[in-house]
Amino acid sequence: MQKARSGQWYMETVSENEYHLHAIEKVLFVGESKFQQVSVLETPHFGKMLILDGDAQHFEKDEHIYHESLVHPALILPPDPRKVLILGGGEGATLREALRHKTLESAVMIDIDREVVELCAKHLPHCAAGAFSDPRAVVRYEDARKFLENSPEKYDVIISDLTEPFTDSPSHFLFTREFFSIVSDRLANPGILALQASRMYSDGNLHGVIHQTLKGVFSFVRSYQAFVPSFFTAWGFITASNTLDPLSFSAPEIDKRISLRLSRPCRYYDGTTHTGMFSLSRDLREMIASQTTVLEDLKPFSWEAGNLLVETK
Amino acid sequence: MQKARSGQWYMETVSENEYHLHAIEKVLFVGESKFQQVSVLETPHFGKMLILDGDAQHFEKDEHIYHESLVHPALILPPDPRKVLILGGGEGATLREALRHKTLESAVMIDIDREVVELCAKHLPHCAAGAFSDPRAVVRYEDARKFLENSPEKYDVIISDLTEPFTDSPSHFLFTREFFSIVSDRLANPGILALQASRMYSDGNLHGVIHQTLKGVFSFVRSYQAFVPSFFTAWGFITASNTLDPLSFSAPEIDKRISLRLSRPCRYYDGTTHTGMFSLSRDLREMIASQTTVLEDLKPFSWEAGNLLVETK
Amino acid sequence: MQKARSGQWYMETVSENEYHLHAIEKVLFVGESKFQQVSVLETPHFGKMLILDGDAQHFEKDEHIYHESLVHPALILPPDPRKVLILGGGEGATLREALRHKTLESAVMIDIDREVVELCAKHLPHCAAGAFSDPRAVVRYEDARKFLENSPEKYDVIISDLTEPFTDSPSHFLFTREFFSIVSDRLANPGILALQASRMYSDGNLHGVIHQTLKGVFSFVRSYQAFVPSFFTAWGFITASNTLDPLSFSAPEIDKRISLRLSRPCRYYDGTTHTGMFSLSRDLREMIASQTTVLEDLKPFSWEAGNLLVETK
Amino acid sequence: MQKARSGQWYMETVSENEYHLHAIEKVLFVGESKFQQVSVLETPHFGKMLILDGDAQHFEKDEHIYHESLVHPALILPPDPRKVLILGGGEGATLREALRHKTLESAVMIDIDREVVELCAKHLPHCAAGAFSDPRAVVRYEDARKFLENSPEKYDVIISDLTEPFTDSPSHFLFTREFFSIVSDRLANPGILALQASRMYSDGNLHGVIHQTLKGVFSFVRSYQAFVPSFFTAWGFITASNTLDPLSFSAPEIDKRISLRLSRPCRYYDGTTHTGMFSLSRDLREMIASQTTVLEDLKPFSWEAGNLLVETK
Repeated sequence: MQKARSGQWYMETVSENEYHLHAIEKVLFVGESKFQQVSVLETPHFGKMLILDGDAQHFEKDEHIYHESLVHPALILPPDPRKVLILGGGEGATLREALRHKTLESAVMIDIDREVVELCAKHLPHCAAGAFSDPRAVVRYEDARKFLENSPEKYDVIISDLTEPFTDSPSHFLFTREFFSIVSDRLANPGILALQASRMYSDGNLHGVIHQTLKGVFSFVRSYQAFVPSFFTAWGFITASNTLDPLSFSAPEIDKRISLRLSRPCRYYDGTTHTGMFSLSRDLREMIASQTTVLEDLKPFSWEAGNLLVETK
Repeated sequence: MQKARSGQWYMETVSENEYHLHAIEKVLFVGESKFQQVSVLETPHFGKMLILDGDAQHFEKDEHIYHESLVHPALILPPDPRKVLILGGGEGATLREALRHKTLESAVMIDIDREVVELCAKHLPHCAAGAFSDPRAVVRYEDARKFLENSPEKYDVIISDLTEPFTDSPSHFLFTREFFSIVSDRLANPGILALQASRMYSDGNLHGVIHQTLKGVFSFVRSYQAFVPSFFTAWGFITASNTLDPLSFSAPEIDKRISLRLSRPCRYYDGTTHTGMFSLSRDLREMIASQTTVLEDLKPFSWEAGNLLVETK
Repeated sequence: MQKARSGQWYMETVSENEYHLHAIEKVLFVGESKFQQVSVLETPHFGKMLILDGDAQHFEKDEHIYHESLVHPALILPPDPRKVLILGGGEGATLREALRHKTLESAVMIDIDREVVELCAKHLPHCAAGAFSDPRAVVRYEDARKFLENSPEKYDVIISDLTEPFTDSPSHFLFTREFFSIVSDRLANPGILALQASRMYSDGNLHGVIHQTLKGVFSFVRSYQAFVPSFFTAWGFITASNTLDPLSFSAPEIDKRISLRLSRPCRYYDGTTHTGMFSLSRDLREMIASQTTVLEDLKPFSWEAGNLLVETK
Repeated sequence: MQKARSGQWYMETVSENEYHLHAIEKVLFVGESKFQQVSVLETPHFGKMLILDGDAQHFEKDEHIYHESLVHPALILPPDPRKVLILGGGEGATLREALRHKTLESAVMIDIDREVVELCAKHLPHCAAGAFSDPRAVVRYEDARKFLENSPEKYDVIISDLTEPFTDSPSHFLFTREFFSIVSDRLANPGILALQASRMYSDGNLHGVIHQTLKGVFSFVRSYQAFVPSFFTAWGFITASNTLDPLSFSAPEIDKRISLRLSRPCRYYDGTTHTGMFSLSRDLREMIASQTTVLEDLKPFSWEAGNLLVETK
């Protein structure tokens, strides 16, 4: 008789009817910052994982899929991007990907939680991979909205790597029409915003809500996706700009720019990947187009808002 | 104090370290055919599910993603497809999608398990949706390989909707180089084969193995994928042909053919979807290209074969 | 690489923080009676299980522990028990144990759900084990309270094998002081009532509530318990009588009566077991004694009643 | 739409077919000693838990049930116990319970793992509750068998609070006939040994094996049990002695001794509890009696030994 294994698991709640279970091999760190609970766990298959307030943020083995997808499709579009602003992104991996672009002169990262940034630097060194000591990197610990309201500076690319705007989240007012107007004002010409924008298939269609909110501010709003194996789902992203449209760039043009601007290829992203990410399936496009909710400062995100309950088809 | 709910669950084993849990609302049918155990369950979110020998085959809510992806990318390519052969496909949904093409004169479906076909017709009527009574449909209950070996008939499109070729499966010898040579002989000119080809991200890289095996027989072998929410993974497919290449068809050309040949649009598939499906990310392309195993009648699929343990990157 | 097993599980919700998982080997029956949902499943270790409205009722392998514990400690006490009344007990196993007493002349079983009785007879034949065709057995399908109110008949032993009196249960008014008064009137002299009385360690201390309610009606109210491995918990029972006290019977006296009245020994119950069951630990006795809630027709069981939230110590 | 909770869980593997899930509220400590992996977790319902090498050792809320059951039934029997030896017991709770006996002059605790003792003192202060600073307490960090072999000292009571003798455990040779002979030599006259002796219902019937092994050395070997809610099972213990038999002590005699020797009552244990614990049910007694395996230094415990696979009935 073989003795089976007891142990710790991470259970991700998709809904009350679906769960994912990940075996935990080792607990590397647990603690609390001023803003959130932080755990760093090790899984047998996907490597280290970071959990903030109970939600898995990334897994070591495939975080490059998420972070390359968030950064490069936008950053590759301006002819000569020099200044980047990152909102959130405490792990440092978004900064890492941005700084791979040789044209960059500065990358400013604004994160509200200094402790998480320092914990990740210590326990997840593969994330920043040295980016924090790049002379072009500037890290500031403050509220992203306050920073943008108070600083007139303009950026070629702004990257929003924030948690979903749930009621208790510090990101609650960082996905509203008013906030996106401020962001729009802080973009150079040409300039582009990229956002992580929730899972593609969610009952509340939060992705569609963010998309529609952006459409009230920007001319070119493009949803795209990447399947992240450790998340067991397709993750959604959006680019928004009044000048730059990722759909008008061919795969060879993307590949040419990558070879000119980056010192080595990406693992996940290239020209063909670019084409694939932005070519959403028909029902996803319809689901996004059918959404009518717009987030405003006086009407921010709320699960109770009935119009969020549009089912994916 | 609220009383939480006890009940039945379907637990899908991804590996011994990852599991998915689906709540079961109702058990609609359980029984055994001559070949396999069969259950039909109802889930709150994804609707009815079919389980064969413990493995979930499809969920009502998004089976159209799988079946449209299997059928249309291949069937849309020949200029005037008239004859289709389906290997497996007992639920009837593959037949349903094929028969939507108005050019078709006959669709022959070969499934080894008559009982499963009849059970699905009874308990999952949304699958066939009347296809079995279409005058163009012919259903035969026999071994697919024997049928192909004994019949000289040629087909414009052959669709392989078989279970993975695991050791105990009746599909064990339906993914070998020798079998694909027979299939190649049974294709008209022009003609094309489409296969369901396992999950894209699997430790054993079975998808890559099937791809490489096909490359020994066909000139144009193209992997493509669709994210199926209820499977929590990106599913892999392949087209193989000596004459037809899905990469050389533009999205507008696909859309034009759909509007000419189908009486109403698909839910998931269209020209843009076609482009997206075949635009695999860089690491998937490399993972497939790096595979060297080829399945042969004397060396069929086996988990123990060390070369299957190529990790996804 | 070994492929792990996907499949169906029964998950029992102890609370939102604790769950038990049982693998299901086979689904033997699913359906609905007029009163409840019914499933019969097969588990690898504990054999067949019966589920009513989502709650596991018994497992084949150790149901004898529950049923022997419910029946014999009371039935062994009267000097010459001839007439038994069973409330509920649809599976037939309570009737089976009662009829083992050779002194019995009749055993009347009142169950509201004829379909469940018939389903159990068919799918769980080990439960009744022929009891339904014993000439002393009478089975009536009606509401137990109505039956008792309308029939003046008296019984040596009354056995309550009812589901917990939760709000939606047909047993909601079968655990109140008023109901127990009727039961008391229907007991012969000497006569005794035995009840299944919920799990011993529950947050709401339902066992203690039933105990206190009985104390308002009977002189001798005795809680006892049996650990049921498949339930992963100690199950509670109570005897109540104005004449018979199980604590005044020695183990040898119990053993002597068993050998005289039963044709073969029980598997779980005997004199020593009797002594052990009624010798509750100090904290259990205190937990029961500290309960003050009494169930009445105008104040039946309710989870919301604050006084049920007495924690076990 | 309410967002359900993701998070960490402790899954206890009863067998490959049964699991228990405990929600984890907080991870308080994780690390490794020279001998084992150590975690201290917090659960919402049962409080803090200690995990050694993946196995739950105790839960704060009901550890008193286990520790009172292990210590008092033996320690109450000698007329004037002065010297106690504890083997294992790193958490300090066994020492805590022993030192409650006012007759004691010394309590020696031998644990191989100094780090675990110190970690428990720090993270689980409720366990020792000051016992380590009692002037009667002596703690030594060494191998229990070596200590006993080298020291001729005799004890009124020896308490074995060791992990099960699985192949990799440091306790592998602390449950053999030869070891028990040494223990027997170190007992005063009168003197008694008490052991934690695995779960009562286990497929391999390890409890029965330990019982039979002791019977080769001692005249009075008595199995007893306590249901521990957080373990979801009845736990087994054994007393062994050539002079003292717990079955010959009445409940009032136990209660009298408790009131004389302890300064306040126990929470779980008293005279009635004593009677109940030793009154095992008929099938448990038969299961123990039917076991024939005896552990010896040349034939220590092994899952593979076929005779361990006696099923509980």
